[in-house]
Amino acid sequence: MPRQEFEDRISKTVESLSDPKTYNVVCHEHRLGEPLPSIAKLRKVVNMIREILFPGYFGNTSLRPNTTRHYMGVYVDELHELLSEEILAGMCFECQDDNSVKIDKHKARAKETAACFIENLPEIRRKLVADVNATFINDPAARNLGEVIFCYPGIRAITNYRVAHKLLELEIPLIPRFISEMAHSETGIDIHPRAKIGENFTIDHGTGVVIGSTSIIGNNVKIYQGVTLGAKSFPLDDEGKPIKGILRHPVVEDNVVIYSGATILGRITIGEGSVIGGNVWVTRNIPPKSRIVQSRPKSTTFADGSGI
Amino acid sequence: MPRQEFEDRISKTVESLSDPKTYNVVCHEHRLGEPLPSIAKLRKVVNMIREILFPGYFGNTSLRPNTTRHYMGVYVDELHELLSEEILAGMCFECQDDNSVKIDKHKARAKETAACFIENLPEIRRKLVADVNATFINDPAARNLGEVIFCYPGIRAITNYRVAHKLLELEIPLIPRFISEMAHSETGIDIHPRAKIGENFTIDHGTGVVIGSTSIIGNNVKIYQGVTLGAKSFPLDDEGKPIKGILRHPVVEDNVVIYSGATILGRITIGEGSVIGGNVWVTRNIPPKSRIVQSRPKSTTFADGSGI
Amino acid sequence: MPRQEFEDRISKTVESLSDPKTYNVVCHEHRLGEPLPSIAKLRKVVNMIREILFPGYFGNTSLRPNTTRHYMGVYVDELHELLSEEILAGMCFECQDDNSVKIDKHKARAKETAACFIENLPEIRRKLVADVNATFINDPAARNLGEVIFCYPGIRAITNYRVAHKLLELEIPLIPRFISEMAHSETGIDIHPRAKIGENFTIDHGTGVVIGSTSIIGNNVKIYQGVTLGAKSFPLDDEGKPIKGILRHPVVEDNVVIYSGATILGRITIGEGSVIGGNVWVTRNIPPKSRIVQSRPKSTTFADGSGI
Amino acid sequence: MPRQEFEDRISKTVESLSDPKTYNVVCHEHRLGEPLPSIAKLRKVVNMIREILFPGYFGNTSLRPNTTRHYMGVYVDELHELLSEEILAGMCFECQDDNSVKIDKHKARAKETAACFIENLPEIRRKLVADVNATFINDPAARNLGEVIFCYPGIRAITNYRVAHKLLELEIPLIPRFISEMAHSETGIDIHPRAKIGENFTIDHGTGVVIGSTSIIGNNVKIYQGVTLGAKSFPLDDEGKPIKGILRHPVVEDNVVIYSGATILGRITIGEGSVIGGNVWVTRNIPPKSRIVQSRPKSTTFADGSGI
Amino acid sequence: MPRQEFEDRISKTVESLSDPKTYNVVCHEHRLGEPLPSIAKLRKVVNMIREILFPGYFGNTSLRPNTTRHYMGVYVDELHELLSEEILAGMCFECQDDNSVKIDKHKARAKETAACFIENLPEIRRKLVADVNATFINDPAARNLGEVIFCYPGIRAITNYRVAHKLLELEIPLIPRFISEMAHSETGIDIHPRAKIGENFTIDHGTGVVIGSTSIIGNNVKIYQGVTLGAKSFPLDDEGKPIKGILRHPVVEDNVVIYSGATILGRITIGEGSVIGGNVWVTRNIPPKSRIVQSRPKSTTFADGSGI
Amino acid sequence: MPRQEFEDRISKTVESLSDPKTYNVVCHEHRLGEPLPSIAKLRKVVNMIREILFPGYFGNTSLRPNTTRHYMGVYVDELHELLSEEILAGMCFECQDDNSVKIDKHKARAKETAACFIENLPEIRRKLVADVNATFINDPAARNLGEVIFCYPGIRAITNYRVAHKLLELEIPLIPRFISEMAHSETGIDIHPRAKIGENFTIDHGTGVVIGSTSIIGNNVKIYQGVTLGAKSFPLDDEGKPIKGILRHPVVEDNVVIYSGATILGRITIGEGSVIGGNVWVTRNIPPKSRIVQSRPKSTTFADGSGI
Repeated sequence: MPRQEFEDRISKTVESLSDPKTYNVVCHEHRLGEPLPSIAKLRKVVNMIREILFPGYFGNTSLRPNTTRHYMGVYVDELHELLSEEILAGMCFECQDDNSVKIDKHKARAKETAACFIENLPEIRRKLVADVNATFINDPAARNLGEVIFCYPGIRAITNYRVAHKLLELEIPLIPRFISEMAHSETGIDIHPRAKIGENFTIDHGTGVVIGSTSIIGNNVKIYQGVTLGAKSFPLDDEGKPIKGILRHPVVEDNVVIYSGATILGRITIGEGSVIGGNVWVTRNIPPKSRIVQSRPKSTTFADGSGI
Repeated sequence: MPRQEFEDRISKTVESLSDPKTYNVVCHEHRLGEPLPSIAKLRKVVNMIREILFPGYFGNTSLRPNTTRHYMGVYVDELHELLSEEILAGMCFECQDDNSVKIDKHKARAKETAACFIENLPEIRRKLVADVNATFINDPAARNLGEVIFCYPGIRAITNYRVAHKLLELEIPLIPRFISEMAHSETGIDIHPRAKIGENFTIDHGTGVVIGSTSIIGNNVKIYQGVTLGAKSFPLDDEGKPIKGILRHPVVEDNVVIYSGATILGRITIGEGSVIGGNVWVTRNIPPKSRIVQSRPKSTTFADGSGI
Repeated sequence: MPRQEFEDRISKTVESLSDPKTYNVVCHEHRLGEPLPSIAKLRKVVNMIREILFPGYFGNTSLRPNTTRHYMGVYVDELHELLSEEILAGMCFECQDDNSVKIDKHKARAKETAACFIENLPEIRRKLVADVNATFINDPAARNLGEVIFCYPGIRAITNYRVAHKLLELEIPLIPRFISEMAHSETGIDIHPRAKIGENFTIDHGTGVVIGSTSIIGNNVKIYQGVTLGAKSFPLDDEGKPIKGILRHPVVEDNVVIYSGATILGRITIGEGSVIGGNVWVTRNIPPKSRIVQSRPKSTTFADGSGI
Repeated sequence: MPRQEFEDRISKTVESLSDPKTYNVVCHEHRLGEPLPSIAKLRKVVNMIREILFPGYFGNTSLRPNTTRHYMGVYVDELHELLSEEILAGMCFECQDDNSVKIDKHKARAKETAACFIENLPEIRRKLVADVNATFINDPAARNLGEVIFCYPGIRAITNYRVAHKLLELEIPLIPRFISEMAHSETGIDIHPRAKIGENFTIDHGTGVVIGSTSIIGNNVKIYQGVTLGAKSFPLDDEGKPIKGILRHPVVEDNVVIYSGATILGRITIGEGSVIGGNVWVTRNIPPKSRIVQSRPKSTTFADGSGI
Repeated sequence: MPRQEFEDRISKTVESLSDPKTYNVVCHEHRLGEPLPSIAKLRKVVNMIREILFPGYFGNTSLRPNTTRHYMGVYVDELHELLSEEILAGMCFECQDDNSVKIDKHKARAKETAACFIENLPEIRRKLVADVNATFINDPAARNLGEVIFCYPGIRAITNYRVAHKLLELEIPLIPRFISEMAHSETGIDIHPRAKIGENFTIDHGTGVVIGSTSIIGNNVKIYQGVTLGAKSFPLDDEGKPIKGILRHPVVEDNVVIYSGATILGRITIGEGSVIGGNVWVTRNIPPKSRIVQSRPKSTTFADGSGI
Repeated sequence: MPRQEFEDRISKTVESLSDPKTYNVVCHEHRLGEPLPSIAKLRKVVNMIREILFPGYFGNTSLRPNTTRHYMGVYVDELHELLSEEILAGMCFECQDDNSVKIDKHKARAKETAACFIENLPEIRRKLVADVNATFINDPAARNLGEVIFCYPGIRAITNYRVAHKLLELEIPLIPRFISEMAHSETGIDIHPRAKIGENFTIDHGTGVVIGSTSIIGNNVKIYQGVTLGAKSFPLDDEGKPIKGILRHPVVEDNVVIYSGATILGRITIGEGSVIGGNVWVTRNIPPKSRIVQSRPKSTTFADGSGI
């Protein structure tokens, strides 16, 4: 390709890519002059929280009676600063108008909200301690609590969920969703931060788990990899858009176990103490203490190597 | 272990690992003196493309009428340089002979091909805008297009697919496959770059989705996590190797919805407007407007805690 | 929120988070003064091993007759140092008492064990060469061995497994589990390092695969994405904790193929040469040369757009 | 040292270091909640300016007729953002009171000032082109202008000076001083940003050069390493503090050459066209076209090796 | 150059470079298996100390009554760990024998010494506060103490000196010298850590200052750039090696000012209150309250441009 | 400043900065499509060379009889690749025409030259061992050779000089100068790579030393900080440009010592065994075994504090 032709083709493409008509739906103008949430900083936020919750596992905390308080003080201080900043970025991401009065209000609210979140850390730790214990008891292969905390993807995903859920309760936009997608990418476990999950929750292996936004899960529930708590079809409004806020995901009561690959759809209830076998398709209510398994597969023997 | 014994054992192992007989099948001699494709640089390539396609989301682009064109110009220029380099590395990866005439030809073709790819970016953006819209409309939990672009793994995977597919059409080796594996690792969604996918495509949650290389997908299709569009057994040649290029994956027509965990295998057709329920196993043609669901699981109630 | 109130609330939270009662179950005191295993260093260990096993793919090795031995010598030397350090960190992670006699013994054993592991690298390479060949032959879409080594998540997961399995045989705590979780996060494939896997093993696509700790897999086995080799319920001891060490995962004999999403639970045997179809739920022995498929789904045609 | 004693001694030291009486003179409370100037970002600012002024030398600018404007546009845009931020940090460093009205005014002024600085870049480039030419002509060892721009510490120091001087004229605190100290550290050349320096200025080698804050230097001046343009004693006020703003450094007229190590102190004038020899001590006016050299050293011959 | 010839020449060079005879004087075998002092970690040590001494200038310390103690506690804890490690590396650098009893003793002493050093930080801060004040009062161009702390190379060099001097008093090998060379490289100021320097010390500009190892400097001394406090010739022992430990550098009494470029050599005394002019060569005692200046240079006027 | 005005002013500045008339003298078009020499890579080159020459000091070399050869082999191999690349970049920096035949020739020559340089490393090591010994013997404060190698700026500067000098002898453009400027920035010692320097060379402290391009230095010479071996005026050609290549710097014969701050200018000879005192100005030949010192400064005593 001659030099001039190359330059012309590239220039034409730049023109086309710079034409507002082609990008105005999918471009992001940084609102109020504030930056986008930073993926790197949100990772740091989550890592700090993990170190605060499980001291000594994910940071450099040197735990001795004299030093623990210093480390907690510093981590909490740094967390407040970093989290306020990201909360603000999340607010500006969704905010429509652009004036400097608003930005001052946003800043104050971001700091306030970050402080509220921090006040909830002791309660989040209490719940996660219970989740770690439940996970340990549910897995004969686990050697000790330390291994569960340090290695298990289920704990990582539940940690992100409990953090994101609290941030969502504090009405922070975008950041909660991002934090759960972070765990989704790392573990394959996709828990919507709006879902409600009880205590002593175990996810084993976890890849492919989906827990939809209006799901409700009781206490002492255990689910395996590939389990979906999803929605069936959903009603559309007059413009053909889905109506928001309809309860469309399952309610899973206490003490339920769901084996790998089960797909449970719609606002149905899986009754207390039930066991749902793997790979089933469930779209109706299941009474308490039920045992549901896939109907028996067809089995034939064959002599040739022709496969399936 | 005494020092000398240690040295001897290590030395013996180094000998063994350096014996060409043990590695010559699985070593890579950098052909024509050019380096391997660089994983870090390919990540940068994909990130640049994402910023060009969705300006303002993944970079520092400061979008104002006066500046957009400058940013697009610079990004396109940098992309051309980096992509040419990686395309060349991909070519040399597969190239068998080693002479300097070839390398000059390769270099020219790499630059030409990178320019052709760049010319296709406006069209790729057009398609992705439609995919984003479809995803938004299909998910009641989505708050706005920005959240879909910034957080949704489905959009990330489809972006990598549309980029990799175009690179494959331009006959670039290795790089397309690597770009789709990059999305696979991040999202759990594995779309072969050779697959053909229509417009307004939605993948929800996505972990575990597999779309094989000869699949054809129509417009307005939505698939959920864990769906496989795969091959059954495939014929072998006389040496026992699989015959390449046989059409062995499904055709999914327009307006089909496939729920989580469905496994659809072989060169069959899922007819227009059909709905495939979760966890089914489908190996035969499905007529248009069909509804397929797993046969009802066995349900029993139990009083004891013996599980499944 | 007034400044003073803010300070008070934060201080109170720091108090609470520093209360040993709230964290003493889930904190990690660095035992014997040695650091935690380092995630970054373990990544480097695995990458070095990959470069030693497949020279020229994952590093800067410049392979020429005169240089290969130098590179192998240096890589092995660096690997020994880094791996000794991480093995020591793993030992201290689980060690309960804290005295300096112990630490010297641990150090000696860590170096010894790292050397033993290195002596096994030629054998690990031999097995992985066979796995790469099997994967190539099993996938019509693969263009050459290089693409399989460089891009395929199955090979990455099997490599980590074979490395972790050997480390576990050498009785190193924590590190093997961490190395398999590393592959789990990157590929969605979760192979417990204690599982026993034969030669010529293929995992295709792989996301969602789970292979439990007491599984036994023969030679020439191929499994697809989403396959679970798991446990059913397991017996508890008097304190309600699961009894460790019970054989509770399947035995898969030679030449078996298992399609995507199959869930196979309990200490059952899948007989030689069987083919297990996708999405089935199997909890009983399967005789050799069986073909198991899900019972046919219900199919209806519909005219309205009401979905499932 | 027993554990407890260690803890006590460390704790006591922490107490002492945390006692406000010991640090309140030398601590920095981040005023108005804004961060300190960032050393890393100021380095980036200076590097960006260098790339804008000398395109193609210090960055990735790919200079072609079609692309230069894009690169300049992007660099200027990025520079404006980064520089505004650092100017603001500099303002807050010196600002005494702490209220949010002020911070908004500061922000606006920082952006305005950054824009004014950018408007001066073409003029700064014009002057530096002349400095580069003068340096090239003055050094027989220089091979070409490119070498002078890329390698010569004199050009680096003069660039930082011309940038810092303009920022000081725009009344920005702290940042100009920091930028000249950056060059001082890299080159050993210490030019106060308040000094006034004419055109076609050459500093050769440069280590140890000091040019004080009220110095005035004409056109076509050349100075060598180790030259000081400094102050003698200076008057103190009633509190014993030096009186600020007194003219206390030399005036060097056009076409003067000053050889290495000359020390020139006080508000004296070195007349047009003079040559000052090395290592002299000058504290009085020098008429135009003078030639000043050190009085001849004492020379003896010696036979023994006793040295000096 | 043909391939084979190239390989042969390179191989031959590798042989030669690997011949112990050629490197055994200048190679470093890591003694006792411990690593070399790490340049990167020593930089971090010095930066931490600077942040502890001048809180809020060089780190992220967020200074509020509630948080200062936490930050000091954490910084001191981290400093103790890092410094112990580097002290140990310094000990092993000089240690000749290689047995594991020794290493345990070294470790204990390294930790002890690091704690002793930390106990001296309050006193080091007290002295540096005085140095900062003296520097501020001595420079009419300084705007405030903050600028002096943040920007002035003299303060940076004196800080490193006071730290290194204390470490040397604690008999730590190598590290003190390295810390002063770090300041030397950054500022051009070379103060031997063994020199003794009083209070209220000012170095202005500083490039080229050398203060030799047996120098003694009183209180309220000010020296300018390029000043040497050095040794003349020194006696050799019978093997022709310099005899260590002889007092061979100047004593500078209180309230002395030394202007730029003065060279003062040998164990002489510069009497209290003296002023030494620039560029002089002083090798004999100077009585108190002397004023020493270079003899007047020769001055001629010239009409031609022939230079010097 | 209103938004629109801001945009207009910035745009106008971008126009001006993009006007080729303003930058065409000082811009660098990457010739032949090859990149500029990379500052980061040249640092790595020099560091590799330092580790090869002084094994165990600046890298991770684990020196044991079995491993030294492997490390040397790998370092030499990596050095060859990196250095070839930078040599090529240096060639293209100065090359005027732009065609692809040339680039192939350049590449071949760059590889050849890098190999030649590597062949000289044993000889460079031999010379540096002698320099280290001389430096050690000349400094009573040095504790051992290790400290000299690890800490002394003189050795760092001489190492860069000996490397750069050899590269210049091999007629490589730009790179030698850059390598000496690297040492200049780090140590304040500016040795032109074209200077000729004998064996057993010592530079003590070194800040401010300048050794011009046509200087010749004999064996066993020692120079202190601030010494200049420079040029006086130099003849201009008809266009007023300095005539290149004239011998204009001093010849310093064997066994000479030059104290700090001496300025020695022009093509004069400092005779064998002479001692030049500090701060002298020497522009004429000095016979062998001379002792030159500054004439005695004027000394007065004063009672008032009026300074100088």
